[in-house]
Amino acid sequence: MALTHYPVINRNGHIISSAVTNLDLHDLSRSAKTYGVQMFYVVTPLSDQKELIKKIVLHWTNGIGSHFNPSRRSALELVNIKDSLDEVKEDIHGRTGDYPKIIVTCAREKYNNFSISEFRKTLQTEVPCLLIFGTAWGLSEELILKADYVLEPVKGYTDYNHLSVRSASAIILDRILGER
Amino acid sequence: MALTHYPVINRNGHIISSAVTNLDLHDLSRSAKTYGVQMFYVVTPLSDQKELIKKIVLHWTNGIGSHFNPSRRSALELVNIKDSLDEVKEDIHGRTGDYPKIIVTCAREKYNNFSISEFRKTLQTEVPCLLIFGTAWGLSEELILKADYVLEPVKGYTDYNHLSVRSASAIILDRILGER
Repeated sequence: MALTHYPVINRNGHIISSAVTNLDLHDLSRSAKTYGVQMFYVVTPLSDQKELIKKIVLHWTNGIGSHFNPSRRSALELVNIKDSLDEVKEDIHGRTGDYPKIIVTCAREKYNNFSISEFRKTLQTEVPCLLIFGTAWGLSEELILKADYVLEPVKGYTDYNHLSVRSASAIILDRILGER
Repeated sequence: MALTHYPVINRNGHIISSAVTNLDLHDLSRSAKTYGVQMFYVVTPLSDQKELIKKIVLHWTNGIGSHFNPSRRSALELVNIKDSLDEVKEDIHGRTGDYPKIIVTCAREKYNNFSISEFRKTLQTEVPCLLIFGTAWGLSEELILKADYVLEPVKGYTDYNHLSVRSASAIILDRILGER
């Protein structure tokens, strides 16, 4: 899976590179580890942000944090920092020999063309899948329209659909991969 | 539901009052709002921590943040700060005329005596339910043993069970209340 900081939109709908949130790295890597995700790509084109991610990850994988909390280490070891989603696709191609199916997430219903149960079936095949989460106000429309599939949004018990990416990603992994 | 900062245990198993994490307030209130939870109690006996929670919540419910992001306001309006879980029970009694059934969460399997489907059934009755999440390394054993029920832990696709409370609470609300 990937968490991307570009291209995402801000509250006014403009495309931006968002800042990295420390707890996104922790929470999403822990969820990824829990649900057996092979790799957690963190995508940003900004070099200072890449340095920040490296610093955080190294603290927990090789630094003081790795002794303090070994279970955090094994989660953050899944992090793989990339400049762009194209680099992520090439990396997956290099590792598996195949380009992945691209599945993007979006809180709005209008792009939805892929159900959780279709995703579960796709995972039974040999095709690698790349599930992409956005930061800020979500992935750019261009990225959504270019994807192979747009996953159905999480519906709660109300019309409120403003989950954090930390919560939404956990729920989606649980719906796709959790024990039922 | 309640997020409690006391009595919880630290990494050495000692009972502590944990510090409040800003993003816990945001993420859990947004998840609560999404799944139609009536009230989100945040419990700490420490007065400086209560002041911090009030400051954060007021920023988003009455301050600049409420104009900047109205959907965040409607989530954080669910926050109700209490000194102790006993105060929470009294508050629920005052509002509903009944003391709530106490359901606690625990990542370990050994205390589990209440399944998700039993919880779903209980919610169909008139009895108010209080679902308690812990911070730090989890709720104290005494609190777990005193509860009416201990909810089954979230099982992922692996043996790794170190989800953040932000992720675990989102998954649990989705399993109990999400559209299936």
